[in-house]
Amino acid sequence: MNRAQLFEQIQKKKSFLCIGLDPDISKLPKHLLKKPDPIFEFNKAIVAATKDLCVAYKPNLAFYESQGVKGWRSLERTARMLPADCFTIADAKRGDIGNTSAMYAQAFFDKLGFDSITVAPYMGRDSVKPFLNHPGKWVILLALTSNEGAEDFQLKNVPEPPAGRTHVISLLFEEVLMVSQGWGDADNMMYVVGATKTDYLIHVRKIVPDHFLLVPGVGAQGGSLAHVAKHGMNKQCGLLVNASRSILYASPGEDFAEKAREEAMKLQKEMAELLDKHLG
Amino acid sequence: MNRAQLFEQIQKKKSFLCIGLDPDISKLPKHLLKKPDPIFEFNKAIVAATKDLCVAYKPNLAFYESQGVKGWRSLERTARMLPADCFTIADAKRGDIGNTSAMYAQAFFDKLGFDSITVAPYMGRDSVKPFLNHPGKWVILLALTSNEGAEDFQLKNVPEPPAGRTHVISLLFEEVLMVSQGWGDADNMMYVVGATKTDYLIHVRKIVPDHFLLVPGVGAQGGSLAHVAKHGMNKQCGLLVNASRSILYASPGEDFAEKAREEAMKLQKEMAELLDKHLG
Repeated sequence: MNRAQLFEQIQKKKSFLCIGLDPDISKLPKHLLKKPDPIFEFNKAIVAATKDLCVAYKPNLAFYESQGVKGWRSLERTARMLPADCFTIADAKRGDIGNTSAMYAQAFFDKLGFDSITVAPYMGRDSVKPFLNHPGKWVILLALTSNEGAEDFQLKNVPEPPAGRTHVISLLFEEVLMVSQGWGDADNMMYVVGATKTDYLIHVRKIVPDHFLLVPGVGAQGGSLAHVAKHGMNKQCGLLVNASRSILYASPGEDFAEKAREEAMKLQKEMAELLDKHLG
Repeated sequence: MNRAQLFEQIQKKKSFLCIGLDPDISKLPKHLLKKPDPIFEFNKAIVAATKDLCVAYKPNLAFYESQGVKGWRSLERTARMLPADCFTIADAKRGDIGNTSAMYAQAFFDKLGFDSITVAPYMGRDSVKPFLNHPGKWVILLALTSNEGAEDFQLKNVPEPPAGRTHVISLLFEEVLMVSQGWGDADNMMYVVGATKTDYLIHVRKIVPDHFLLVPGVGAQGGSLAHVAKHGMNKQCGLLVNASRSILYASPGEDFAEKAREEAMKLQKEMAELLDKHLG
């Protein structure tokens, strides 16, 4: 899915919601555990109940890998089942030397058919570029994450700007945004910026005005949707706001999909208003 | 395997060699491709031919994930087959928010039984600590990697030292070494430092004199073993030097395991001399 198509879906559904498919086996409704593939059944029901309310789905690889071969099979079945009108994100946070990143690209783009993959920037250019060699696919690079540990390195000062830049001082995540401009563009790269760090969205938008941002941290982690929209939205919306636990586990019972829909709808309604306010 | 046991193996085998199990299906000997699980057969033959010459094995997850469910099954079978007297490393470069890192720890420590996992530091403390909650298991944190892209961020200046430190200026990878001292110690953390960056090993050893270092980049990537030993070895050796491609693909024919043994033996002999020279 390309940028124009993604914006088209956002306008059509009046939503920029991404739903994180993080199926924690210990939290799944009990009646599903009797089925041969509970994770897939859970995801299928969640997707059926929410696909008109969101524009993207984001399976988090850890929740599948923790189940071994069975989990990887659930992931393959989930990837195949995701609707064609939704942008798909493998939340894998990969990144390694070139020949290894090329293998990960093969796993997630060619084998599983995802539109995009989340990538950690620590290893630099040759760990990211192999993912950009796949036409029509996207890298979603970690910039400023939603967790407490973001302070350890991402918010550290880095005094040397890249050649040609006039910035006197910048933070590591800003450096990541700036340096990675040389690797791809707004048509094949997005950035992760946590909803718990909205004060920094102004800085982010100065460096990457056109890129889409994947914004986790609304919901269970406590970020505000209105703040994210105010400081982060651009002319093509430019936001995919993720919620996982608040939707998936809205009810522990047989009505989980129905309750998930209600939670997704609350967010979608708020998003429709924000789209109207900022782009309308 | 704990630190004393690892040093015991190093002394016994006169080797600090780690062999990377990166089975690229396009490079496997043709006669293996007819077998039901070529990757496992390849690994089994490599391990049988080299287990007295090395002290660690390091499967690189990308090479398994690129083969989907089949690859994950090969990984499970490989993990079970690795000898008990060898330290085992899941080269996965994971790291995510706390609940997700906890899931990855479950996948690699509990399900697959690895002694250790490589972790990327970009997301900070709460992305690393869940891996340290498993007694007897290890985190191998990326510090200074062997690839070209290490220059993009790892070698950037970071002017603010952590509280109580007198450093006026440090590089990002040094900051990673310093800050992460608060998360674990030399008995549950190691660091990745590339063999192509031996000039920095002196700096590394000033900050982490006792920790083991996992050193990739000897062999196909061109790093020098003698330099690594000179600047990186400590009283308990403190080094695991990895080679992958130069051993695995020493021959494309039916004699691949025999030729792999010859390559591993060259490195082991050099290592025996270096151990003798620096620790003897």
